Amino acid sequence: MLSELQPVLVDGAWRPARSPRGRFHAVNPATGEDLPDSYPTSSFEDLEEALVAARRTAFELEALSPDAIASFLDRFAERILERADEIVAAAHLETALPAEPRLRLTELPRTTNQLHQAAAAARDRSWCRATIDEKLNIRSKYGPLGGPVVIFSPNNFPLAFNSATGGDFAAAVAAGNPVVAKAHPGHPGTTKLFAEITLGCLKETGLPPAMLQMVYHLTPEDGLKLVSHPIVGATAFTGSRPAGLGLKAAAERAGKPIYLEMSASNPVFVLPGALRERGSEIASELFASCSLGAGQFCTKPGLVIVLRDARAREFENTLRKLFEQPPSGFLLSRTVVEGLRSAVDRMTRSGANVLAGGRSLEGPGFRFENTLLKTSGKRLLAHPAAFQNEAFGTATLLVCCENTNEMGDVCTALEGNLSASIYSARNGDDDPLYRRIEPVLRTKVGRLLNDKMPTGIAVVPSMVHGGPFPAAGHPGFTAVGFPASMLRFAALRCYDNVRPDRLPPELRDRNPTGTMWRLINGDWTKRDLSSATSE
Amino acid sequence: MLSELQPVLVDGAWRPARSPRGRFHAVNPATGEDLPDSYPTSSFEDLEEALVAARRTAFELEALSPDAIASFLDRFAERILERADEIVAAAHLETALPAEPRLRLTELPRTTNQLHQAAAAARDRSWCRATIDEKLNIRSKYGPLGGPVVIFSPNNFPLAFNSATGGDFAAAVAAGNPVVAKAHPGHPGTTKLFAEITLGCLKETGLPPAMLQMVYHLTPEDGLKLVSHPIVGATAFTGSRPAGLGLKAAAERAGKPIYLEMSASNPVFVLPGALRERGSEIASELFASCSLGAGQFCTKPGLVIVLRDARAREFENTLRKLFEQPPSGFLLSRTVVEGLRSAVDRMTRSGANVLAGGRSLEGPGFRFENTLLKTSGKRLLAHPAAFQNEAFGTATLLVCCENTNEMGDVCTALEGNLSASIYSARNGDDDPLYRRIEPVLRTKVGRLLNDKMPTGIAVVPSMVHGGPFPAAGHPGFTAVGFPASMLRFAALRCYDNVRPDRLPPELRDRNPTGTMWRLINGDWTKRDLSSATSE
Repeated sequence: MLSELQPVLVDGAWRPARSPRGRFHAVNPATGEDLPDSYPTSSFEDLEEALVAARRTAFELEALSPDAIASFLDRFAERILERADEIVAAAHLETALPAEPRLRLTELPRTTNQLHQAAAAARDRSWCRATIDEKLNIRSKYGPLGGPVVIFSPNNFPLAFNSATGGDFAAAVAAGNPVVAKAHPGHPGTTKLFAEITLGCLKETGLPPAMLQMVYHLTPEDGLKLVSHPIVGATAFTGSRPAGLGLKAAAERAGKPIYLEMSASNPVFVLPGALRERGSEIASELFASCSLGAGQFCTKPGLVIVLRDARAREFENTLRKLFEQPPSGFLLSRTVVEGLRSAVDRMTRSGANVLAGGRSLEGPGFRFENTLLKTSGKRLLAHPAAFQNEAFGTATLLVCCENTNEMGDVCTALEGNLSASIYSARNGDDDPLYRRIEPVLRTKVGRLLNDKMPTGIAVVPSMVHGGPFPAAGHPGFTAVGFPASMLRFAALRCYDNVRPDRLPPELRDRNPTGTMWRLINGDWTKRDLSSATSE
Repeated sequence: MLSELQPVLVDGAWRPARSPRGRFHAVNPATGEDLPDSYPTSSFEDLEEALVAARRTAFELEALSPDAIASFLDRFAERILERADEIVAAAHLETALPAEPRLRLTELPRTTNQLHQAAAAARDRSWCRATIDEKLNIRSKYGPLGGPVVIFSPNNFPLAFNSATGGDFAAAVAAGNPVVAKAHPGHPGTTKLFAEITLGCLKETGLPPAMLQMVYHLTPEDGLKLVSHPIVGATAFTGSRPAGLGLKAAAERAGKPIYLEMSASNPVFVLPGALRERGSEIASELFASCSLGAGQFCTKPGLVIVLRDARAREFENTLRKLFEQPPSGFLLSRTVVEGLRSAVDRMTRSGANVLAGGRSLEGPGFRFENTLLKTSGKRLLAHPAAFQNEAFGTATLLVCCENTNEMGDVCTALEGNLSASIYSARNGDDDPLYRRIEPVLRTKVGRLLNDKMPTGIAVVPSMVHGGPFPAAGHPGFTAVGFPASMLRFAALRCYDNVRPDRLPPELRDRNPTGTMWRLINGDWTKRDLSSATSE
């Protein structure tokens, strides 16, 4: 007998999916076995209803103070902490990520911290860049999109990038938008738990209960239909490049903004002087970064570029020994195992050698050997696409360049990336080479690092988690960091000669908080307009 | 005998077009006759060479101080003023726009003013939003795109939106990018003149001479190839919707940002109380706005929405008399005449009545009667697309709604627009209706006006010239106003743990100007970092 399907969250209430297109189970990656609950793949009926409710909700949210939205975000973070045990247990079961330290001590605090930062940004209001030109009485600010933000979340951060609680959710809500969340089918139970907590907090803080709506899964066709629907404000997607490119084309054809994070190889350049000074230390850092979360990070270093010399051979040997360790941790799904196997195959077919690992391991659970590959700069230049495929897992490709010219050419051949790291000698020996490759690398990445591996993304205002296509969809935005990440979900709104009582509070003569920054007559200030006393 | 083709500006020098795909003449719209000079339609050879030079130039510009770029922009504005007579004469000949007041007293000062504003923004540097988190030593800012900005300019502003001198040019250059300009084929001579002045100023101020490159015309296929070329940073397009949509699809498929301004009907709502109070005054304002520049403004009001009552009938009669005046001014080209004729046909076929005008006039020159059409709210709702086609010319459609419900439905049926205006009674009688339609209109437009017609776009920081699709390509950007318009041509760049001497000046401990705003540890400030003394 089929077990009952879990309900979806539509228009402020949990209800059975209407005419579901299918059913699925989450899988425990540590055993490879199905978990007990059954979840529906929604039909577009669920989405149509969610969209209509979201449009109404968008207008309801507009009428609320940012303080009300901030209170919800803070309360949500508190309630998450209260239910930390449940959340960690659910996420651990569905992803096999370690309950500690990863889920409880790293990802959960990051998740609640993000929600508090989003609340603070909403309350502060400076993010909306209120701009007033007094003489002409023209005023403008960023405002919400007028329709929901659709969020497709990735498999690898069941808490911090979850569509019902993660960074995109926090940014979209803080900017005043309702959210239509698609769970990642790898962790539907975790997502359902977050959606339950959200709904409770919405009711508790008096926000419209349809501010979050959630389904577990969609057919690819319905995904395309969703992101291009007239009611939608924008979409945020984190996931694979093929899925991302399909959604991008559909959304853009309909004139709908879409923000994507679609893969990266995050090249790490280790310059000769750095290898001389501290090659073995860097090898350890590299292995630690590659194997963090079993290599399932968007910023995992997938390319390591060195100049061929004796130190590079030593570095290679040290790395090989590190990668020969038995793998720790599980991959998130059978799909991840297959993706890694096919990436390794593609690279070896294009001429890379396997220095360590290279094979999936027999069960139970989804495992793959730590894998170190090697190729030459020349070969990478001959097949640039084959060597720049993101593959989740503890795997990286060492690229040995013959000379600095070839290293420069490799920089030029790199695709748009989330990050690039350059390790250079502390004594300045590598500075000429740094100066040569940095200008090209700078145009290829969102985040440029010195002497540091790219994993570990601090949620601070200066963070950029984004970059040029195809790492992301647009180089001018970031998915991490407040308030900048909120600008993805905002429209520029000008009020030209609009009567004072019809202006949003942020654009009235009196500064609504006394502390928000506004650009008045060309100067950033916290002051009221001179006429504010008359209000 | 064929006259010699005018040269193109590629890689810092004027030279003949290579293997041109064709030749064309500008046409004097006041006579309908060809002007003497012949211009080439470039082949992709010219563009390929321009792109390679632009890539090199992008790196050269990065190495310069923003002050150098600002000096160029200021000098350029000065040199333009020195050659005002020539410029006005060329533009008048090619567009038939009045030399005075339009070209000399309105558009030229706006053009030079924009350049000075861009210079001031570049010099100030606050536009780049330098963000520093001291504890983690993560820093970020907006920077140039690493490739040229391609600019396609429109027919209707030969100076202020010219691809070699207008708002897009000023914003792209101030943000540190080289420009590849495509002239509008309606005013190639004016564009050539600007490009000559630019080249002179680049040399004079020591900037790379390939910072501006210019061709006159392209085949549509080469346009698609250009905007999707790997070297290109981004594209700015102002023009017709079909051309814009084609370029948008090509650029986005290649992952290249493109900013478009593609048409708008700029609805004006005149609420019943306003009609009672000052219907005839509003009719005069409306006619003046519609006929400004012979109706060839992006923000020309193309829809006027009223409630059917006795005052609306009076308003209609007043308007009809105004539109029955003989037309003043010429349309910019035969294409504009044909576009207007076909828009009128489309509306009448869908059931609109012609109240005044409706026909093109016999030559010499390109002229069309002032045209007032009328339809019902019900009919617009039945054929929303047919009535929302932008048509340049002194033409507008009066839409009479049966009741406030129907007016609300018309708001919902509106496409994304650059602007919407609402005229309402001064005594508050219309406030309930205002509150009903404003929330929907707000989500449909970039600029919302009260008691004011949309033509006349002030170049101030608070201006928004943009809006939701299909008025523009993305609702979060503006094509007019500094510093906001520069953000279209910028990439977010993070420096994570980058050594101090390798940071761009804006991100070093010491504030490089002493006056630029930076977000340091979450607070906007002009201060140095505490450690700046050690620099």
